[in-house]
Amino acid sequence: MPSLDLTQSSIDITRQLCDIESVSGNEKQIADAIEAALEGAAHLTVSRHEDAIVARTNLGRDKRVVIAGHIDTVPINNNFPTRFETIDGVEYLWGRGTVDMKAGCAVQLKLALELAEPAVDVTWIWYDHEEVSETLNGLNRLSRTNPELLAGDFAILGEPTSSDIEGGCNGNCRIEVRAFGLRAHSARAWVGHNAIHDIAPVLTTLANYVPREVEVDGLVYREGLNAVGVSGGIAGNVIPDLCEVQVNFRFAPSRSALEAEQHVRDVFEGFEVEIVDLAPGARPGLDAPLAREFVAAVGAVPRPKYGWTDVSRFSALGVPAVNYGPGDPHLAHHDDERVPVAQIEAVARGLRAWLTA
Amino acid sequence: MPSLDLTQSSIDITRQLCDIESVSGNEKQIADAIEAALEGAAHLTVSRHEDAIVARTNLGRDKRVVIAGHIDTVPINNNFPTRFETIDGVEYLWGRGTVDMKAGCAVQLKLALELAEPAVDVTWIWYDHEEVSETLNGLNRLSRTNPELLAGDFAILGEPTSSDIEGGCNGNCRIEVRAFGLRAHSARAWVGHNAIHDIAPVLTTLANYVPREVEVDGLVYREGLNAVGVSGGIAGNVIPDLCEVQVNFRFAPSRSALEAEQHVRDVFEGFEVEIVDLAPGARPGLDAPLAREFVAAVGAVPRPKYGWTDVSRFSALGVPAVNYGPGDPHLAHHDDERVPVAQIEAVARGLRAWLTA
Repeated sequence: MPSLDLTQSSIDITRQLCDIESVSGNEKQIADAIEAALEGAAHLTVSRHEDAIVARTNLGRDKRVVIAGHIDTVPINNNFPTRFETIDGVEYLWGRGTVDMKAGCAVQLKLALELAEPAVDVTWIWYDHEEVSETLNGLNRLSRTNPELLAGDFAILGEPTSSDIEGGCNGNCRIEVRAFGLRAHSARAWVGHNAIHDIAPVLTTLANYVPREVEVDGLVYREGLNAVGVSGGIAGNVIPDLCEVQVNFRFAPSRSALEAEQHVRDVFEGFEVEIVDLAPGARPGLDAPLAREFVAAVGAVPRPKYGWTDVSRFSALGVPAVNYGPGDPHLAHHDDERVPVAQIEAVARGLRAWLTA
Repeated sequence: MPSLDLTQSSIDITRQLCDIESVSGNEKQIADAIEAALEGAAHLTVSRHEDAIVARTNLGRDKRVVIAGHIDTVPINNNFPTRFETIDGVEYLWGRGTVDMKAGCAVQLKLALELAEPAVDVTWIWYDHEEVSETLNGLNRLSRTNPELLAGDFAILGEPTSSDIEGGCNGNCRIEVRAFGLRAHSARAWVGHNAIHDIAPVLTTLANYVPREVEVDGLVYREGLNAVGVSGGIAGNVIPDLCEVQVNFRFAPSRSALEAEQHVRDVFEGFEVEIVDLAPGARPGLDAPLAREFVAAVGAVPRPKYGWTDVSRFSALGVPAVNYGPGDPHLAHHDDERVPVAQIEAVARGLRAWLTA
């Protein structure tokens, strides 16, 4: 059974975590190791919920913050185990999970063990199944089974932000748009009706769509409406009777989920539109007092988070939440995933400064 | 193993053939059954070439005709097995293969076994893989491996013509048209380039295309340019870097294969165009003496064949060829494929009259 040595540096702990394979669904070993590493800490109440580990201080502070990270990764693709490498004088830890998001978890684990008397009470959460369906998501599960564990005045998610603070997140909607026709032999196409031809206006609409940039609580969110899949066709000599476009709509947190749905229905009026998946965004939440203190302590200029993250779960529970973690989000899920080790140290310093202020 | 009883009526033999599933690639059972049913016929020399069966008379006649039909069908779609049904007083055999073209094969098989002394020598051919790529086509394979088996003074293909005579055929070209982009996470679509959006003008061109009607040797051929497939997409959160449209071009026999290719390249200028399959059409071929006698015996007014058929293989070998078979070609490949049983009897009478004249 792999074990973790949390007395090492955050960089080394990142490497230890990455070298325990934990592709979504296979988090048991890494959860065991985290649970064991925290066992001796008298200042923490540790509980396990399937493969999610929760560690809480109970110091009777005025405020409680939740600091969370997911311990699973997307599948490995010739990028396991990790190695150190230097490119143009920048030292990186390279490999699956270094960016998304074991560097963030490493920083959190080390601080959880070391800070016996943080300035606020902290609920640390490391959870499973973030990279797969929302129905499996460990934080989602906890919010149903133990909602009290997610309660707090502010939350920080360790998702990669290049060690900047990224507020809130865009909403995410998956849609299927369909056109229907009538099958016929392609030698006598005029007998049938071609569903692929009929889908042309949908693709033209997508090609011409100008996504909005929307300011929400001082941050500018960029929306996006994109085909992520298209399929149609029965055989090489058959006029097809069905064509489907899979569309992904990323929408600013100023739109509700309902408004987002209405928007795509308006955009594709005249076509069958099915909402497959709809997750609301989260407003930046940077007007909360704790958030303002956090921003000041870290000394960063907050930016919007374009991708959907679990901050929206906190947002839905009324807890303002931001993303703050090492690693470039553009390299998340990338085969060449790698984190600059200096960013791991920067986030460790930032969080430590705030929690000990 | 299914067996065939060729002493039954052509209608019943059609039903027997249709109830042996033989979607392209799965012709072994039906070929076995045909081979077994002809085994005892002393007047026929039967040979098997993979799943194609050839049966020849060798009576030393002046003339030899080739009479051929394919034994495969397009995929089943809730239309197997067959059933008899009556609509507005017309009796039909309904189900996959009834039109394209097991009714034609049934008539041929019964006559092959019964006519021990036809007026001309006959080469009967039942072959596989007509509904798929030309590289797999059984008649094409025979023309390479045993070209002597296709030799003759006239050829009749049993493709559905509503028991009329249809001369020649349109050419057939399969094309792939592609657009390329750059992958990116769909939360940051502006980092990539969406190939599915780029394919929109291809579908718009197809939707707006007005096909020609062209007179060739007195018959009017109708062309057609259609998407028969479209595909693109990697995952629900990835901007796709490739989108492909499969296009089918049916062109009048007055265009050469080269001219047809140039036409589609012009239509899709600016896109990558790959010619996947290109089969020339066949001019009507009704000026041959045997063709004229055949038309007279059947008593029909010849019409053009819109679909590409294997008559063009005979045409390319210098053998004049026509299509003559039961069933409305509009219902070929249709889910509601059905043949009027009277047409099966009409074609059986027409062929028998001519072969025994």
